Amino acid sequence: MDRLIDAIAATQNPSVVGLDPTEALVPPQVVAEFADEIEQEVDDPQERPAARLAVAYFEFNRAIIDAVADVVPAVKPQIAMYEALGPAGVDAYTMTCEYAASQGLYVIGDIKRGDIGSTAAAYAGHLSGVGGEPPFDPWHEDAVTVNPYLGTDGITPFVEAAEAADKDIFALVRTSNPSSSEIQELELADGGRVYEHVADLVEGWGAATVGDRGYSRVGAVVGATHPQEGAALRRRMPHTFFLVPGYGAQGGTARDVAGMFDADGSGAIVNSSRGIIGAWKRTGRYSESMSGDEALALVADAARDAAIAMRDDLRAVMP
Amino acid sequence: MDRLIDAIAATQNPSVVGLDPTEALVPPQVVAEFADEIEQEVDDPQERPAARLAVAYFEFNRAIIDAVADVVPAVKPQIAMYEALGPAGVDAYTMTCEYAASQGLYVIGDIKRGDIGSTAAAYAGHLSGVGGEPPFDPWHEDAVTVNPYLGTDGITPFVEAAEAADKDIFALVRTSNPSSSEIQELELADGGRVYEHVADLVEGWGAATVGDRGYSRVGAVVGATHPQEGAALRRRMPHTFFLVPGYGAQGGTARDVAGMFDADGSGAIVNSSRGIIGAWKRTGRYSESMSGDEALALVADAARDAAIAMRDDLRAVMP
Repeated sequence: MDRLIDAIAATQNPSVVGLDPTEALVPPQVVAEFADEIEQEVDDPQERPAARLAVAYFEFNRAIIDAVADVVPAVKPQIAMYEALGPAGVDAYTMTCEYAASQGLYVIGDIKRGDIGSTAAAYAGHLSGVGGEPPFDPWHEDAVTVNPYLGTDGITPFVEAAEAADKDIFALVRTSNPSSSEIQELELADGGRVYEHVADLVEGWGAATVGDRGYSRVGAVVGATHPQEGAALRRRMPHTFFLVPGYGAQGGTARDVAGMFDADGSGAIVNSSRGIIGAWKRTGRYSESMSGDEALALVADAARDAAIAMRDDLRAVMP
Repeated sequence: MDRLIDAIAATQNPSVVGLDPTEALVPPQVVAEFADEIEQEVDDPQERPAARLAVAYFEFNRAIIDAVADVVPAVKPQIAMYEALGPAGVDAYTMTCEYAASQGLYVIGDIKRGDIGSTAAAYAGHLSGVGGEPPFDPWHEDAVTVNPYLGTDGITPFVEAAEAADKDIFALVRTSNPSSSEIQELELADGGRVYEHVADLVEGWGAATVGDRGYSRVGAVVGATHPQEGAALRRRMPHTFFLVPGYGAQGGTARDVAGMFDADGSGAIVNSSRGIIGAWKRTGRYSESMSGDEALALVADAARDAAIAMRDDLRAVMP
């Protein structure tokens, strides 16, 4: 986790921009601009709406990345948004990761993968790359999120790949959504809750990979919507770095996440997606008569302002 | 789940072939055959090994699909194996799903996705397709596997998409891997185990979608390596169809899965991957001097024989 922690220190900003585009978040003129190009390149008319969106998502992301690259240490593209468009969307995802990395950002691939032994090893290709020396890296992620429900043998391949490639993973522990309580909060016969048991597993999975900054390569996803639990987990998992979703649009505030940092103000990075990439919608400066370039300039300006506001909001509560 | 159950009835065979190719499972001459084509099409030499494998995986799968299409009702491609190759692999995955569907097979996309509300809705695009009327379906899956760790609001979007598109999902309940016990078997304060609580959630998630054959659109993944638990879950989840991995290479036998069928011999479909697609390695008939076509013919023959043997093995224990 040292690379991420150093990037946070360099920007003095423990926040990450979630690159989770949807059709509603991308100005329509940006999508329309690619209509001619896609009509020439994609034979099947039925495929064209998804292809147009995929190209538009990348241009949208590029504008945001350019606008925030000196403000934030990291971005977190959510692969689901891209998978929704099929393989053209997956291409836009990898292009986004590659471009963000080229601009010096640490890239957290929010893929929430999880499977058993040999299959988990295949998923770990997201981190290790494939073939050759050096391996070919098609995904361009510095870290990925993983699902712990299958236990240790589903996680070990990711830890090994992370160690070999100087990368990291974040395992779901306590997610930010309302129904997360249904399984994660179940009370266990020997005391404690399911998520606390998972927390102990996660701390153990990382134990052999603690870096110079005191945190292991196995981080935890802990939602901003659970401030007390988050603060308790901070104490319970002293070598586990937190990725904290749920700030902003989902209701979490800077005060809610304050307890997830350690005494030195390290230990966590807070994500905001819609609050940053959809900030242009709240400016009152958007107009349908804008060109695609003008709309993207507004997206970029608003994202930069929102990222700076989030940084300052977090700084105000940091220890 | 009616479409799958009808397909099982038509073939009198409750088994599914796992299309989980790896470099070790594809005869090397099949991969080598595409070297010239890939060299011309892919500019970056570093990308070529993955591109060659991706094309070879599709040809390998097509040979197997052709050989088993009249023997089995369904195939289950494991997307991790394709993601390991990057976007070229994802293309091979969708091409595999499309080809299998064109040959009349029910396609279970083993993607184990799971996320919260709006993100789960994006993943549900695997089932609903994207845009337009009719929507564009880039994935060509009839069902997908999902991870339940995030609770109801992570599953509802999949159930809604399944209902709208006449498709199905299978939620992980009790996986076949050794470490599955670490979280799934935890004993709860109010009695029972975590996986039993998840089982009750899964039965509930499907309740409003029970079809003509008595099973809902929300199936459960229950590993063949847990025969007693599987039989108990069969009684506990009367409207939940089971997808049973772990037969064959992972150690599960026909006797182990017998209890997962209902009194009519319905209620479950059993997966084998390496046992079918890697059967050519156990024939003693492979030689390095074979051409690519000869090697694929052996792959196909051996897969067909293995699929028939598995069918007969299962039939012998069916109620």
